[in-house]
Amino acid sequence: MLLEASRLLRFLIALLALSSTLSAQKVADLAISGGTVLTMNAAGDIVEDGYVAIARDRIIAIGPRTQLEKEFRPLRTIQAAGQLVMPGLINTHTHAPMSLLRGIADDLPLKEWLEKYIFPAEAKNVTADFVYWGTLLGDLEMIQSGVTTFADMYYFEDQVARATRQAGLRAVLGETWLDFPAPDNKSFDAMVSYTAQFLKQYQNDSLITPAVAPHAPFTVSPAHLMAAKELADQFHSPILIHVAETKTEDEDIKARYHASPVQHLKNIGFLEDSVVAAHCVWVDDQDIATLKAFKVGCAHNPSSNMMLASGVAPVMKMIQAGLDVGLGTDGPAGSNNDFNLFEEIDLASKLQKISLMDPKALPARQSVEMATVGGARVLNMEKEIGSLEAGKKADVIVINLNHPNEIPLYDYYAGLAYSIKGSDVDTSIIDGRIVMRHRRVLTLNEDQIFQKAREFRAKILASLKTNN
Amino acid sequence: MLLEASRLLRFLIALLALSSTLSAQKVADLAISGGTVLTMNAAGDIVEDGYVAIARDRIIAIGPRTQLEKEFRPLRTIQAAGQLVMPGLINTHTHAPMSLLRGIADDLPLKEWLEKYIFPAEAKNVTADFVYWGTLLGDLEMIQSGVTTFADMYYFEDQVARATRQAGLRAVLGETWLDFPAPDNKSFDAMVSYTAQFLKQYQNDSLITPAVAPHAPFTVSPAHLMAAKELADQFHSPILIHVAETKTEDEDIKARYHASPVQHLKNIGFLEDSVVAAHCVWVDDQDIATLKAFKVGCAHNPSSNMMLASGVAPVMKMIQAGLDVGLGTDGPAGSNNDFNLFEEIDLASKLQKISLMDPKALPARQSVEMATVGGARVLNMEKEIGSLEAGKKADVIVINLNHPNEIPLYDYYAGLAYSIKGSDVDTSIIDGRIVMRHRRVLTLNEDQIFQKAREFRAKILASLKTNN
Repeated sequence: MLLEASRLLRFLIALLALSSTLSAQKVADLAISGGTVLTMNAAGDIVEDGYVAIARDRIIAIGPRTQLEKEFRPLRTIQAAGQLVMPGLINTHTHAPMSLLRGIADDLPLKEWLEKYIFPAEAKNVTADFVYWGTLLGDLEMIQSGVTTFADMYYFEDQVARATRQAGLRAVLGETWLDFPAPDNKSFDAMVSYTAQFLKQYQNDSLITPAVAPHAPFTVSPAHLMAAKELADQFHSPILIHVAETKTEDEDIKARYHASPVQHLKNIGFLEDSVVAAHCVWVDDQDIATLKAFKVGCAHNPSSNMMLASGVAPVMKMIQAGLDVGLGTDGPAGSNNDFNLFEEIDLASKLQKISLMDPKALPARQSVEMATVGGARVLNMEKEIGSLEAGKKADVIVINLNHPNEIPLYDYYAGLAYSIKGSDVDTSIIDGRIVMRHRRVLTLNEDQIFQKAREFRAKILASLKTNN
Repeated sequence: MLLEASRLLRFLIALLALSSTLSAQKVADLAISGGTVLTMNAAGDIVEDGYVAIARDRIIAIGPRTQLEKEFRPLRTIQAAGQLVMPGLINTHTHAPMSLLRGIADDLPLKEWLEKYIFPAEAKNVTADFVYWGTLLGDLEMIQSGVTTFADMYYFEDQVARATRQAGLRAVLGETWLDFPAPDNKSFDAMVSYTAQFLKQYQNDSLITPAVAPHAPFTVSPAHLMAAKELADQFHSPILIHVAETKTEDEDIKARYHASPVQHLKNIGFLEDSVVAAHCVWVDDQDIATLKAFKVGCAHNPSSNMMLASGVAPVMKMIQAGLDVGLGTDGPAGSNNDFNLFEEIDLASKLQKISLMDPKALPARQSVEMATVGGARVLNMEKEIGSLEAGKKADVIVINLNHPNEIPLYDYYAGLAYSIKGSDVDTSIIDGRIVMRHRRVLTLNEDQIFQKAREFRAKILASLKTNN
């Protein structure tokens, strides 16, 4: 009897100890345990056998697994031993709904491609429904290739927002303003009020940052550009715009305004740090200094610039001047033709090397930075995303390192830039939510999206035939 | 009773009819049924809802499914409805065993990369065992990304052959000759007799075509180059060689021999149609005319040429002059860093466009041709491989078209060049044998290869540390 009481006592003491340990442990919603954590923070920390603790939408701790797994009691744990854990990639420039036009016309100059194929196809087919389903298709591909944030400018942008919220992706979205009729066929006043309404609606959204998106200096008048800027200033929102993409644009703006596209934008008072300038191919040293002075971020799109033969952006000069430079896929129709940011990392480095005839140009780590922290800075979101740090949003991808192209791995940055593929991304967490696990996107119905995309294909082809 | 007899009679008649149909049907070992068959034949035939019949190692018929499925009684059928069936890709230049050195040193000039990193790492680590396992790793990646034939030059090439036979891949393999000590450390006479033995051993092999592989005009003396040619002529075998890869090589050869690398090779009597010249970056109009006159095939390696900043091969000029041009990945260490020929297709087109500032340059179909029929012509194997035609070897890949980057699909060539990935290849058939099904390579033990590769990584890192 005494023995029994002693046993009971020992059991109770043990229980008490356990419960005190448990109550000392901090609660986390999610932990990623055992992987190599490539933080992309300023110190370049890489934690082998690391641990990332997440509560709600934020990272609350990063460190060695052996230490942190004692401190945290997560509701769910992703075992990542042998895998690479890193910040989700940031696609700083795209037109997601154009996925439905992917490959409809290729190997053409920008002007001919736009005027003969894309604009007519868009005029006949781009509806709110097209934009919604095209975005879902694009979102699916972006999630599956490691993108967790993207910047988009297209038409019916409220549908892009609707689809993207559903996908669970983070995005900066702006309705494109053009001085000629766009597929959604709105007057200038209607565009302004649509955009104002859009800015209001998503002002405090956890995933969507609403933006203003005048198309480009050669397609939007100075007055309308400044109206866009005023609206953006009023709502403290980003401004998305194409700048200095082609030689034709450069020549056109110089003929009209006696200034380069960048100087023209400066002269009319348009430039400020909220501007995200896509392309910046035709920029000289003065333009780079101006972009730097106004803290304009640049979205570099190597695939698109190569495919459309637009030119090579002077990325090394831009980085050396201290400009914020991110990477973008551009739209997937005629200018890429996919949303695979891993290929842009690879190409960014290789394109600088070949164009400068310098194999040391834009080394792997710099192009990986452009796809993560660099992109975050371009979008003015570096306090929230771009690196894995306690306090930042939990936008994390986990890469399977068990494919032949990933073995052996001597250098994580070189691996990411030159041999790891978008298809090697296994798991994606955005805003603390698991949106993909073992390559299955949990937020979207893949079969339904594919079915819809194929229906749109048939419709689009029929619409083009009636043109002949 | 009469009723029963009548029933029996009718049954017997039906049985007779069935057996006569069956005996009229031709036997096939394998059929690929219902896919879109992109033949890559001279007429550019594409058969929707097609059928490919295979007997032993050869294609015996291609046509519409509805017709051929009545004619053939295959032992096994691969259902390919909704999938793309095409010739396997041909990688015309690589160094497969270097997979074990992938990413060991990047972002460096060719000379520094070779002399400071690769040659020392090779000197200490490249053994027959290294070559065997490195090749298995490379073979695995090539199969998984749609390659069915590759051309390789390295050391211990008998181990490359052994591994590749095991993988079930088709290959043209040559032991590299250098005028300075190579990792297998053979005298010139030993190299010649090793190569002669290798040529004899694989003379009638179904998968391996043995070759002679003098490294390059700047690393092999004219006398040794001509000895290589004599040996090749004796065995009617291909000659693999690097030609005019870098400006340094061009300048070096001009200083030594007062001729460009191509003219130097012509002057010594080396050129003939069995020569496969890798790179051909520094070739002028006269060189292109010479290569054409001697029917030399060129292996274009866009990733490698960009990454090492070697220069841009004048591919459009070469094609316009009627040269045979194929695509290659080059080795996966420092100059790519993978074996993914789909990325070379994409890059070949994009690199010509940007370097010529012409978006129409090297359209999708031409770069897909380079990866298939073009590569076959470069290797002088166009009668056997490169397109799907009755009588040719059954080297076929089946691509899953059910990923977001493959939907919608308006143009197969544009899809293959710009949005379909190596990871979308589902099934691979080489020499009539299914080597991969649903992405699982059936001929190799993936886990064992990965394990060995990781062991080699540890050894290689340790060997480099002892150097410091």
